[in-house]
Amino acid sequence: MRIGNKRYRTIWDDSREYASVFAIDQNALPFSLNVIRMKTARDVYTAIRKMSVRGAPLLGIASAYGIYLACVEARKKGLSREMAEEFLKKRFEMLLSARPTSINPEWAMRVVLDSISRYNNIDKKTGAALRTVRRLADNDAKNCRRIGIHGKKLIADIYRKKRGERVNILTHCNAGWLACIDYGTATAPVYLSAESKLPVQVWVEETRPRNQGAKLTAFELKQMGIPHTIITDNAGGYVMQKGDVDIVLVGADRIAQNGDVCNKIGTYKTALAAHDNGIPFYVCAPLSTIDVSKKNGFDGIDIEERDEDEVRYAMRGRSKIELCSPGSGIKNYGFDITPSRLITGIITERGIIKPDKKSIFKIKK
Amino acid sequence: MRIGNKRYRTIWDDSREYASVFAIDQNALPFSLNVIRMKTARDVYTAIRKMSVRGAPLLGIASAYGIYLACVEARKKGLSREMAEEFLKKRFEMLLSARPTSINPEWAMRVVLDSISRYNNIDKKTGAALRTVRRLADNDAKNCRRIGIHGKKLIADIYRKKRGERVNILTHCNAGWLACIDYGTATAPVYLSAESKLPVQVWVEETRPRNQGAKLTAFELKQMGIPHTIITDNAGGYVMQKGDVDIVLVGADRIAQNGDVCNKIGTYKTALAAHDNGIPFYVCAPLSTIDVSKKNGFDGIDIEERDEDEVRYAMRGRSKIELCSPGSGIKNYGFDITPSRLITGIITERGIIKPDKKSIFKIKK
Repeated sequence: MRIGNKRYRTIWDDSREYASVFAIDQNALPFSLNVIRMKTARDVYTAIRKMSVRGAPLLGIASAYGIYLACVEARKKGLSREMAEEFLKKRFEMLLSARPTSINPEWAMRVVLDSISRYNNIDKKTGAALRTVRRLADNDAKNCRRIGIHGKKLIADIYRKKRGERVNILTHCNAGWLACIDYGTATAPVYLSAESKLPVQVWVEETRPRNQGAKLTAFELKQMGIPHTIITDNAGGYVMQKGDVDIVLVGADRIAQNGDVCNKIGTYKTALAAHDNGIPFYVCAPLSTIDVSKKNGFDGIDIEERDEDEVRYAMRGRSKIELCSPGSGIKNYGFDITPSRLITGIITERGIIKPDKKSIFKIKK
Repeated sequence: MRIGNKRYRTIWDDSREYASVFAIDQNALPFSLNVIRMKTARDVYTAIRKMSVRGAPLLGIASAYGIYLACVEARKKGLSREMAEEFLKKRFEMLLSARPTSINPEWAMRVVLDSISRYNNIDKKTGAALRTVRRLADNDAKNCRRIGIHGKKLIADIYRKKRGERVNILTHCNAGWLACIDYGTATAPVYLSAESKLPVQVWVEETRPRNQGAKLTAFELKQMGIPHTIITDNAGGYVMQKGDVDIVLVGADRIAQNGDVCNKIGTYKTALAAHDNGIPFYVCAPLSTIDVSKKNGFDGIDIEERDEDEVRYAMRGRSKIELCSPGSGIKNYGFDITPSRLITGIITERGIIKPDKKSIFKIKK
């Protein structure tokens, strides 16, 4: 996708700078466009913890790059085969702990580790790791585009039913291209619709406490010239009551086998409002987000609790404004569970499926 | 209620300072305790517009004081009877426009205007206006205490059912004593429970964009020594999913004859989450908040749209931090409608009623 006139992906490696991985620093957006450089798995861990790199699909690719960088480190250190294996295992655990709620890091790192397991030589492992990560990144972009093609059909249907009136989409958090490699998950149907000249408008819920909606989704929609309006999370229900929303599109951090969806805190309330107003609510996610090992959304998915300062302060650079009464306690939960009964469908790269066990096991086969 | 060791009301007049009305500046809280002085109806209008004075019941009393100050002005100016009437009418309209969604200003100002209509002499009008406003303020405090007594019974019931475990209450925005004269509406059951040594804990939804929950409710609960925890509005659904909420208590800006409730933006989403989790959801409001002229919540209740800067920036004094992507549009709706089907009951000064037409007409008679 574009920032200004330049095409970007969110993360890339540079063959001229061997063993360096670069990513757009999402903490600096939308106010400045900075690129961070990662040379070790720990650099990747830190970038994820700080949320310079965020969004479930991107977390997957970034973690996969982390395993590649760990191979590079093992090689540089001249570790024996056993020690290298041990080192990779430790780095896998470290990267896994950075943001525990998303399934994508575990999935992507396992794909990389599987692809290098047949090599004994660390040189070969390193090369194979890089090839695998690049393939995963390309696939992510392709899958997002496919999600967009399937989702666009829903938007085109609404457009026809509204006899050519603009289609109003509501989204929560950022499941945009910044959360992925390209296109995004929830935004892909929007971008593909715009490519086809379907008139759309997006309500962007700001998504407290980190405002990924107001900061990142609004930023990328503006760069792509898509009409949009920021609202508080609280106002999401009201715009639906007013009849100003035709469809809700969100992303997912992890989908259980019964179709329950774990996603950014507040998704559940937004889904309730959509359901109460008879508005279709779709979750956009690649199949890799589905975790068939979880029976349902409440089955041991680790809900991250983050630092209370994210709620207490508005921060930018060295400026800091207190938003809460001093001395009061704060809890900062990062995710919630949207039960499958509130979800109209899951838009995947292989089509739209119902959020139920049968459909999920069928498509995951 | 108390701030530090001192008892306060939110608004008062001082007989030693003739024709001055004082109020706690709620924009300065929780960081400093400032008192503003109002000498004209326009001062009251400005205080309301700036939200130095806010909260439906307090808006009622403040607007009533505005009519009293308008009488004082008319007298000072030596206006003829007709011109004085005209002046009062204009001030009534001005004060009414300050925050159009709440019914309380209209109701309270009409009570004052009725009470002075039989006097021709502006001196007598002024004296009668002051007596009426003081009576309204005292009644508001008494009514809130009564709401607390009725609401406490619900909390005591839950406490018994939980066999002595702490009762967890969730609230949105500030329907505390700062929104009223004393005790508050939604907080009165909490304060009365604490008086009776019932163990309670309050989840405080921060309430974007102005954070009246995180700033004002948290502040007053802390001053009164009530255990509480601030969460984002988004997290309200998740704490309910976790089973950590026993009852939801909120205030109201206007209640229609069918029991639909107009209240701070986000109340609707919170009510949906309570309903979905089988958690009782009560609206705490004096009977003066009920507007029997409105058939339902969507029947011509004017939903205030506020300045987009409230969403775009975090502000304190001269500091300002941008929270949104520059150049994106914003809509800032102040209120939403919670349909009566999501409401368990309305706690009034005369008992708890069902949110339906029959119960409402019966109690309003």
